[in-house]
Amino acid sequence: MLRLLAFDADDTLWHNETHYAETQEAFRQLLRPFHDDGWIDARLHDTEMRNLRHYGYGIKGFTLSMIETALELTEDQLDGAGIRRVVDLGKAMLDKPVEPLPGVAEVLQELSESFDLMVITKGDLFDQETKLAKSGLGTHFSKVEIVSEKDRAAYTTILERYGIPSAGFTMVGNSVKSDILPVLELGGRAVHIPYHTTWAHELMATPAEASFPVLESILDLPALLRGW
Amino acid sequence: MLRLLAFDADDTLWHNETHYAETQEAFRQLLRPFHDDGWIDARLHDTEMRNLRHYGYGIKGFTLSMIETALELTEDQLDGAGIRRVVDLGKAMLDKPVEPLPGVAEVLQELSESFDLMVITKGDLFDQETKLAKSGLGTHFSKVEIVSEKDRAAYTTILERYGIPSAGFTMVGNSVKSDILPVLELGGRAVHIPYHTTWAHELMATPAEASFPVLESILDLPALLRGW
Repeated sequence: MLRLLAFDADDTLWHNETHYAETQEAFRQLLRPFHDDGWIDARLHDTEMRNLRHYGYGIKGFTLSMIETALELTEDQLDGAGIRRVVDLGKAMLDKPVEPLPGVAEVLQELSESFDLMVITKGDLFDQETKLAKSGLGTHFSKVEIVSEKDRAAYTTILERYGIPSAGFTMVGNSVKSDILPVLELGGRAVHIPYHTTWAHELMATPAEASFPVLESILDLPALLRGW
Repeated sequence: MLRLLAFDADDTLWHNETHYAETQEAFRQLLRPFHDDGWIDARLHDTEMRNLRHYGYGIKGFTLSMIETALELTEDQLDGAGIRRVVDLGKAMLDKPVEPLPGVAEVLQELSESFDLMVITKGDLFDQETKLAKSGLGTHFSKVEIVSEKDRAAYTTILERYGIPSAGFTMVGNSVKSDILPVLELGGRAVHIPYHTTWAHELMATPAEASFPVLESILDLPALLRGW
């Protein structure tokens, strides 16, 4: 029945949102002489959303949005050293080691013996390939798909590419919006494993009619799949 | 025999390097009060090369490299308005209309009636998807692959994914390094259509033993393929 088991990557296989949160705290520190935290956060979020159509998702676009916000919030008074600090914050994010979440390596090892495993992640192609390589998890996956948006059309394209019927497809991830709902709409199955923090852009109310299992940890996934 | 005909995108289907050249001229103007053109170009190129491992290819990484170079070359003295100007140069590149090169639309229309056409391009996923959509050429292609590096491994992965033997694969592009040599090594065919300018990073001497057709224009491609 289950022909393809796919996993989201950021905040499902490894920590990601926490790196953004740490960077954002360093960004606030830089701008605290000019504004309060709430205003800094709100302006950065607005800049990110406005720039999504230019930059898409990922750390490089986030860095450019931080620079733009810093100039706006200081009326161009932030000095060169301050701008350099923001560029370095972005590079530090790109250089971070990729730490698999607890249990991920063992569970993937176990599941790869029974299933064809895939990664489906959105964001910057280069960043995501680099992270998968650094995670040491790459060998468990026979297929990797990096897309610019995880919507129904993107999942349809992937299933057609590999000739997999939607009924044979299961997606596992932390985002109801990107990992769960579009897959259920297509007739696939989806398993939600929440991360402790979710990017505001990914937050959404779950429609009352949607029904899917929610696990506390990936460690509970093998037992769930055995029960299907 | 020919099962899959693939095209590079930047500088094969549409103008790209000219946009970088125009942007670089605007960048020189900004820094001319501080340094001469040769030194500005050399430092920018060094920064780009040093940052490739962080940023990969694409306009966002190029913009971040311009900002870093501007800070270096002015010893952090470039003011906020100058930095904002560089951010805007990057956004203007992302907003440029995508102009197909002469003959491209007609030739793709003609070839799509006989062959399965594909785009294989490297660079930023989001940028490249946006460009293909803006070009109006997307409907001619049944497959699109955006990769972070066009080397032998990347072509092997693509051919395996679609179950195409290398002998049934032909690649058309403007870069000997990325479009021609790795494909010939795999046992495929390749057609070189040079663009009037090539990014320094893509320049390389052609090995004496490599042999492939070189066309002046994509308009000559249908006749070449008919002769095979």
